Parts: sequence; structure tokens; C-alpha cells
Amino acid sequence: MDPKTLLDPLGLDALYVTRPENVRYLSGFPHPEDAQVLVTHEGAFLLTDPRYPEAEQESQIPARVLKREEKEEVFKGLKGRVGFEAEHLPYAALERLRELAPAEWVPTKGVIERLRLKKTPEEVERIRKAQALAEEALAHALTLLKPGVLEREVALEIEFFLKRRGAEVAFPPIVASGVRGALPHARASEKALEAGELVTLDLGARVEGYHSDMTRTLALGRVDGELKRAFEATLAALERVLEVLGPGKSTKEMDALAREELKRFDLDRYFVHSLGHGVGLAVHEGPGLSPYTEETLEAGMVVTVEPGVYLPGIGGVRIEELVLIQDTGIELLSRFPRGWQEV
Amino acid sequence: MDPKTLLDPLGLDALYVTRPENVRYLSGFPHPEDAQVLVTHEGAFLLTDPRYPEAEQESQIPARVLKREEKEEVFKGLKGRVGFEAEHLPYAALERLRELAPAEWVPTKGVIERLRLKKTPEEVERIRKAQALAEEALAHALTLLKPGVLEREVALEIEFFLKRRGAEVAFPPIVASGVRGALPHARASEKALEAGELVTLDLGARVEGYHSDMTRTLALGRVDGELKRAFEATLAALERVLEVLGPGKSTKEMDALAREELKRFDLDRYFVHSLGHGVGLAVHEGPGLSPYTEETLEAGMVVTVEPGVYLPGIGGVRIEELVLIQDTGIELLSRFPRGWQEV
Ligand SMILES: [Mn+2]
Ligand SMILES: [Mn+2]
Repeated sequence: MDPKTLLDPLGLDALYVTRPENVRYLSGFPHPEDAQVLVTHEGAFLLTDPRYPEAEQESQIPARVLKREEKEEVFKGLKGRVGFEAEHLPYAALERLRELAPAEWVPTKGVIERLRLKKTPEEVERIRKAQALAEEALAHALTLLKPGVLEREVALEIEFFLKRRGAEVAFPPIVASGVRGALPHARASEKALEAGELVTLDLGARVEGYHSDMTRTLALGRVDGELKRAFEATLAALERVLEVLGPGKSTKEMDALAREELKRFDLDRYFVHSLGHGVGLAVHEGPGLSPYTEETLEAGMVVTVEPGVYLPGIGGVRIEELVLIQDTGIELLSRFPRGWQEV
Repeated sequence: MDPKTLLDPLGLDALYVTRPENVRYLSGFPHPEDAQVLVTHEGAFLLTDPRYPEAEQESQIPARVLKREEKEEVFKGLKGRVGFEAEHLPYAALERLRELAPAEWVPTKGVIERLRLKKTPEEVERIRKAQALAEEALAHALTLLKPGVLEREVALEIEFFLKRRGAEVAFPPIVASGVRGALPHARASEKALEAGELVTLDLGARVEGYHSDMTRTLALGRVDGELKRAFEATLAALERVLEVLGPGKSTKEMDALAREELKRFDLDRYFVHSLGHGVGLAVHEGPGLSPYTEETLEAGMVVTVEPGVYLPGIGGVRIEELVLIQDTGIELLSRFPRGWQEV
């Protein structure tokens, strides 16, 4: 990141970065919730406190380990137009900065988030590692799916599996069975799995700050009728999108394509969320694939494609793939079998 | 909470509460990171979104499940002086509110936090439950302490133990052995435990939103010399404070008392953090027991007392108790043996 390229188009003399994912992006520092980055024309440096005496080694940019008073001195030295992250910095923190520094504090939005959209090969490598571990965790979880087992037990086994291997969970794993499958954001509950139900498992790992995200829906024993048809519709919508996904495509059109395919099954009204989202230092980041976003996919972006059908009071299906946009076409980062499976 | 008692002294017509712990405090709603509370003279109500169709049942105050546009309509109806939580609300969120609502938006600090200082018997009961589980987890962890076991393995076992029993961790358990014990905020690492080291375990559970917090330091095999003396000093400082702790006492004086006792051992300069903090819906909340706080302890407050001695390059000791301030004296909520123990 060249400070001049970043600051000049915004007419800024400096940028104060506080959102943890952005701090980590600029510095690689693994405790970004306790650190900030100040970008000036002289370069970018990390600010943190004496809890992290080893910051200089852990940061890829110069680090200053400062007590509160010393940090205030840094701000007192700021002049000119200094950008801050308006969607992250609390009002009171801005007021304190305004009292300390004789600078003009300028609200900015999405500056570093835009840089994060396209991943470097090193970033993709970390996402790959996270995805590989998540697939191992899912394979393990499938061995546990039996009538009587609680959703929460399956979710915890996924979590423990990942943590024993040195990873974190990207989010608390979702295990939603039977009628709970109709709730797109259902957390794993105390409900026991029952034969004849669909089970949706949505899970991700986090490795060196980077996330993965994937969903599979499986049948516990024999399932047919409208739930099987919902599965077929979801799978068709997913594969329709994967066929054409690639650089230069519009996020809005990809979302519309999935809905069009679901409409052939007369199920489009049961797809109640957007088609996908970027994945990286945040598990949900740009670009969004939705009816409301007008973005163009570019090589290096990593996005999910996750159509779903949610039938209230009956059950639901979601299938989610993790995809790297390439110079031509895509690479599927999620490799776990996605077809109909009765376990 | 009576809206009039809350709003009138602040000269407010309404208060918009966004900090999750405060939202949970006012509503009991278990997903407070996705909800807000609006307090008006007509009463307080919860605002959340369609991900939580069951909010009306899960909230102790009236709940409104609203889409984004519907929520904006609520703000458009606000008039007069409306307080917001300045230390939590991001700058950009305030700007959006200012555009929507013809009200005067007034920054407030610590309004709900002050209400949270003194716990009700129901709140204490949840902290008790969390503490009881944490003590079970610690007893389990002690059976694992052997040379060659990694700090991280012990920490994960504590985490899994708590989660299997339906609780969450209050924070990632700290397991700091040998020289790492000299870092007060050390996370559990890949370091293996070795015979002749002290091991500091700092852990808490979270039950129904409420936390516990306790630390023990144990010897792995035979330990003596300056580390044993550091232990004796820490224990003496802790017990000196516990003897006099109670309602009406000054937080600053309690902190000073611990330092005075450590000074008798000439170890006070190695006590590099404050003596304690309140515990409740946040694991660190008011009142602080430190050289910088001037607060008076009152019945119903739940605080930690956690002196420590950190000898750089050598090792460290911390012993932390969880205490309920009562009408006369205290009740020790943490019951785990605290004396010198070689395992
Ligand atoms: Mn997703
Ligand atoms: Mn503590």
C-alpha cells in the first residue's frame, strides 16, 4: 500500500484506521482489536500498548508501543486533513481526537475495505487453508449425524475439531434441522435431529485472520416430496450461477440469475436473503451479491454463492460454495460434495 | 427501570441504547448485538429485525421486529432531546440518525452502565452459576497439568468443558506458565508446561449473559525461591484487602492497600495493573479498583480482587477472587482453594 496513492485522491494528509480487519490488513498484526494504524505521507505505522511488547516483531509495518499519554502526543502532532473511519469510530472517540489534535478530522467510508476486495495469492492461500480445515471438520460432523443427537452437540464438535487443529471458528457453526432449517440464521439449538429431516450445516474456519464459509444440506434417512424438490431447485440455482460466474459479471445479475432459476420451480419467493458476499479478513465483506448491489466481479475476489429455499413451518435448504474469481472464469475453493445425500 | 427517573435528570425526551450489554440489561433479549432499546416517557421498547421473529417472547419489554425502512419510520417520529451512547455509537450511525430524525441528538456517557453497578439477587444468581461452572472447569484443568502439556491444550479443555455444559467462556482462558507468567495478559500459547514452573490460570464462564472471573497460580512440581516469595506476597496482599473490603470503602484505597502489602515484600513495583474491576453483563465493567478511580463500594456490587507480581524474565503470580459486596462485609463468590499448591 503506497500512502500517496491512498491519501492523495482523498485529499488527506493522514488516515487513522481503527476497524480491526483494516488494521490487520495494513499491518498483519494479530491483535488488531487492540491496535490502530496511522497512514501518513511518510508511511504507515501501527499504534498499540504495552500489553504487546512484541508488536515490532508481529507487525509488517513499523510499530510503536505507547502508553496512553504517549499516544496522545502522537495525535497532538497531527496537522492538516486527517481521515477517520466513520462507520467504526465512536462519536466520543472522535470528540477526544478533536480535542487533542489541531487537525481537521474528515469522515471516510470504505477506504481500506475497497483495497481488501481483491485478494493477493498469499491471502487466497490462507482462505484455502481455512476451507480445507472446515471440510475436514464437516466430514467429521457427518459421522455424528444420527437421530437423537442435538444440533448443539454437532456444532460444538465442529468447533472443537477446528480449535484442536489450531484454527478458530469463522462464526458459531450453524446446524439447523427439520423445521428449524426454514430459519436462515438459526443458531444450533437444543433440538435433537430426527429421521426424515433435512439438516443444514453452515461452517467456516479462521486461519491467520482469514475466513472460509460453506454450507451443505443433507437428508437424515429418507426424505422426499417438497423438501427434496427444494433441494433440487437450490442446487440448480447454484449451478446455474457457477456456470457463468467470472470476471466482468455484475453482482446484481448473478443474484437475479439464481432467483430466475428458482422461479422455474416456483420457489423464488422462499429465497429470502442475498446470493452471496465477499470473504477474507471478515467473514462477510464486499462485494455483496444481491439485488441491491451494482458491482462488477474482478479477478482476485473471493465470494460465496449461497442460494436457499426456506419453507416456513416445513424446513429449508441452503447450499453455499466459496469461489475465487480468476482472470478467466472461477476456481471453486470449496470442494466438498454438494449433491443429494441421505446419511 | 422507570423511564421518568432515567430521562428527567438528563433533560432527555428519549434515550437510544445501542451497547449490547446495556440493551440486554434493559430488555433481557439474548441477541443484544442485533438489537437496540429506545427509552421514552411512554416506556422502553426493543428494536430488532426479522432474523428474530421470536423477539416478543425473548424480551422482557415490548419488542418491535422491523425491517430497515420500518425502523427508519420510528426514528423519523422522534422529537425533542434524544440521548445516544457516545462511547458506542459510530460517527456515521449518528449522522444517519440526524438525517432521519428532527430531534436534537445529545451525547451521553455511562447512563445505563451506572444502573448496572449494583446487581439484583437474580443477577448475582447468574454470576454464581457461572462461577460454579468455572470452578468445575478449573478442577478438571488441574488434572491435566503435567510437564509436556501445552498451555493451549489446557485452555481448550477449559473452554470445551464449559461449552459442553451449555455455558460460554467469559474470555479465552489464560494459561501462562514459567516466564510467560510475567506477562499479565498472556494468552495460552504453544508453550509446553515444565516441571518447576508456576502456572497461572485465569478463567471465567458466561451464563445467561453474566460472567465470572477467577485466577489461580499453581506450582508444577517443586518451586521455591523468589517465585514462592512472590506467591506469598500476592496472597498476603489479597487477604489484606479481603479483610477490610465492604460497603463504604474507597476503590482507590483498596488498590493502595494491596500495594502497601506488596511493598512490605519490596515487590510493589511488579504489580503492573489495577487491583480489580466490576463483573456482570460485561466481564470488565464498573467499578474499577485502581489508583485512578474514586468510587465508593456499595452493597450489590460484584468485583474482582486480583493482585499480582510479575517478575520479567522469571515468572509471575496472580490470584483473583470474585466478591459480592454486602450490607455488611462481603460474600466470597469464588470458593476454589487459593493457597500454595504443588501439583
Ligand atoms: Mn455465507
Ligand atoms: Mn479479572
